[in-house]
Amino acid sequence: MQLSVKHLLGIRDLTRQDIQIILDTATQFKEVLQRPIKKVPSLRDVTIVNLFFENSTRTRISFELAEKRLSADSINFTASASSVSKGETLLDTVNNILSMKVDMVVMRHSASGAPHFLAKHIPAAIVNAGDGINEHPTQGLLDAFSMREKLGRLEGLKVAIIGDIMHSRVAMSNIYLLKKMGAEVMVAGPPTLIPKYIQEAFDIRVEYNLKKALQWCDVANVLRIQLERQNQVLFSSLREYSLAYGINKRLLDSLDKKIVIMHPGPINRGVELDSDAADSAQSIILNQVENGVAVRMAALYLLSGGREMTN
Amino acid sequence: MQLSVKHLLGIRDLTRQDIQIILDTATQFKEVLQRPIKKVPSLRDVTIVNLFFENSTRTRISFELAEKRLSADSINFTASASSVSKGETLLDTVNNILSMKVDMVVMRHSASGAPHFLAKHIPAAIVNAGDGINEHPTQGLLDAFSMREKLGRLEGLKVAIIGDIMHSRVAMSNIYLLKKMGAEVMVAGPPTLIPKYIQEAFDIRVEYNLKKALQWCDVANVLRIQLERQNQVLFSSLREYSLAYGINKRLLDSLDKKIVIMHPGPINRGVELDSDAADSAQSIILNQVENGVAVRMAALYLLSGGREMTN
Amino acid sequence: MQLSVKHLLGIRDLTRQDIQIILDTATQFKEVLQRPIKKVPSLRDVTIVNLFFENSTRTRISFELAEKRLSADSINFTASASSVSKGETLLDTVNNILSMKVDMVVMRHSASGAPHFLAKHIPAAIVNAGDGINEHPTQGLLDAFSMREKLGRLEGLKVAIIGDIMHSRVAMSNIYLLKKMGAEVMVAGPPTLIPKYIQEAFDIRVEYNLKKALQWCDVANVLRIQLERQNQVLFSSLREYSLAYGINKRLLDSLDKKIVIMHPGPINRGVELDSDAADSAQSIILNQVENGVAVRMAALYLLSGGREMTN
Repeated sequence: MQLSVKHLLGIRDLTRQDIQIILDTATQFKEVLQRPIKKVPSLRDVTIVNLFFENSTRTRISFELAEKRLSADSINFTASASSVSKGETLLDTVNNILSMKVDMVVMRHSASGAPHFLAKHIPAAIVNAGDGINEHPTQGLLDAFSMREKLGRLEGLKVAIIGDIMHSRVAMSNIYLLKKMGAEVMVAGPPTLIPKYIQEAFDIRVEYNLKKALQWCDVANVLRIQLERQNQVLFSSLREYSLAYGINKRLLDSLDKKIVIMHPGPINRGVELDSDAADSAQSIILNQVENGVAVRMAALYLLSGGREMTN
Repeated sequence: MQLSVKHLLGIRDLTRQDIQIILDTATQFKEVLQRPIKKVPSLRDVTIVNLFFENSTRTRISFELAEKRLSADSINFTASASSVSKGETLLDTVNNILSMKVDMVVMRHSASGAPHFLAKHIPAAIVNAGDGINEHPTQGLLDAFSMREKLGRLEGLKVAIIGDIMHSRVAMSNIYLLKKMGAEVMVAGPPTLIPKYIQEAFDIRVEYNLKKALQWCDVANVLRIQLERQNQVLFSSLREYSLAYGINKRLLDSLDKKIVIMHPGPINRGVELDSDAADSAQSIILNQVENGVAVRMAALYLLSGGREMTN
Repeated sequence: MQLSVKHLLGIRDLTRQDIQIILDTATQFKEVLQRPIKKVPSLRDVTIVNLFFENSTRTRISFELAEKRLSADSINFTASASSVSKGETLLDTVNNILSMKVDMVVMRHSASGAPHFLAKHIPAAIVNAGDGINEHPTQGLLDAFSMREKLGRLEGLKVAIIGDIMHSRVAMSNIYLLKKMGAEVMVAGPPTLIPKYIQEAFDIRVEYNLKKALQWCDVANVLRIQLERQNQVLFSSLREYSLAYGINKRLLDSLDKKIVIMHPGPINRGVELDSDAADSAQSIILNQVENGVAVRMAALYLLSGGREMTN
């Protein structure tokens, strides 16, 4: 089982088979995580540096746990993007770290394409942990893993991605992945937050009415409203967004079926999702978090190349 | 040997036997720490997250060392309390971390009761590393351990807790523990820093005269003056506090016996304690720090439940 | 093989034989780092605390990697120097940490002499990771290691140290080391950045003309211009410095020999070094970074005392 890529930069670069391999490997690691002894020696001699040029407690902890479960040595490095923003400086930083014999780099950066730039210049395997508004591939994979786990398949599944599509790397990775795996994809949200090109570029549905979107889908993947990423004020208030696009239990109960609710976290409770929906039996949000560790173990393991998966 | 509690939230919840078990287990771990090889495999498959919502270098390092000595995997998470201050958000953060299959949570938070709130909602064992002005149970335990180690007993011991009783979680944990173990307790300090209810609530002595307090006690547990916790200005200056309640060698020598000096650290040298007292042969302050690791190993070990203590 | 010192505070304190032992031990560790399995159990029961009172991503990561390769447990502690700047407070902090049974301390501090002060008062071995404008001994050692590796010897080697000699602890450690090992040393840069006393104190050459310096030397160790350390404005602009003392490929090509280019990093590209020089075949800058881990492993290993170097 080998991937067609040397890096995990984005879902865009993966084949359908790559995705299949990662999800299947994650299934095996998830079984490991259910055991009393959750650690495997697979990456015992591998050193991984977590380069976070953008703050992210949860993703960083998830990767760090995945690395520790695989018995890798992790080094954490967090920095403000400003101090390393220019291409050459970024390359210097990473080249230096690699000269210290680091085997893999997990990187989050506020600039779209930063990991792709690195991948052209350095020999180590790179895992993109989120780059600007481009992609967040392990989030896309863990979302798909969680859908497949809950509903048994991706093929033919109707998934509505709801919220700020324009600025969301989670949306991008989801769209690429779901289309490749044969799911039907809809994006829903206010017109100002859905880019014009997206419908034709991906052959997906666009819906501006929340209720209609929910009525159509099997799964609603609700995005976090990230005001810090928005370049223009689009709604006079979060309350206005919440009124038009917030999801609560009453709305879910008004549908003629039980859809699955997902969210990449952290939730703005009361904005895009009310607590009665987020914590309902229809929500698989905490499963997503749990699956994140297994999916990241799979990605790191497969990119480390040719090692035996020791149980 | 099993505790009657699933979490270590405060000394208030412990039985006399619980305290005995923790102190006795800590004695065993202290022996381990004297050996050339200070590591035991007891918690080899346990993952512990250190959630510090309030800055604390020393307590955090002490817990991290205890975890590493027990062969646990530690994940550090530090955040400003403000960004996670609301109950639901705190719960989201912790639930997310637990979904990643973390076994135990060590938590410090500026809000009294934050760990108790969590304990009601999450399945993992929680160790309170200090919550607001409520409790700091491992400090209470390491103080008791150090007294017992130095003087051979807690029963009947006369302990004066000196300083800002009103705002001190260390004072609270000490009072609960010492009373349960049969020590005689006195609180001493300026009237403005000793709450009215404390005398009856705990059946303890109150003394406003420092020399009389020292003359009475076997052990003086001197608290750090934490101006940042005080809501009103009580003394016109630290110098004024120091003149009335600061302890120096001359004062200690004027007593007709050798009392033991303790301090939870970090010391404001020249305020509550002068260097000639803090560094004197009567001081066991550095022993307290050393014992802190053994006591925290004991607490983590006992709460992890049913594991064998491998030497 | 044993060092004549208990701490690595500066190259000033080392004998010629000490330096030889460290470099030779580093050679062995460098071989280990070329293997697929880069970890040795040498310091398996040693706990090392990395006390960084001054920001330094690269040096901190290099030490942390060295510690992990040696199987030591590392604890990271970073703080602003201001909060621990007074001697007694620094001593309290470190004494506390040592009471927790930490075996070694790696320390960076903005105050020259801070690690020497500590060494007088604490029992643990201290490695100076840079103190003010005094010394940065592991940088001096890794520079020497890299020169010896590239050119086969230190004795008789002509080394020009170029840039801000006055404020550079890297310059100081290089000068001490190279003189002890029989190299010929020149310092070059603007007169305002070369202290008057240095020529006699060390019996070294001083050169204010960059081209003449390069023409003379076998190795140019180019220092980083650290504006943050300079107490006076010496050049009207970085551009002015760059015009007079910046090194580029054209300048290197104009010499009648191929000299070796070194830099402790991070490079201000376009200021003291242009990319065409920094990335040229004459540069061994990334080798320096790689060798840093091996040299730090050697220093930590030798200071830990009497342990077997297990391969």
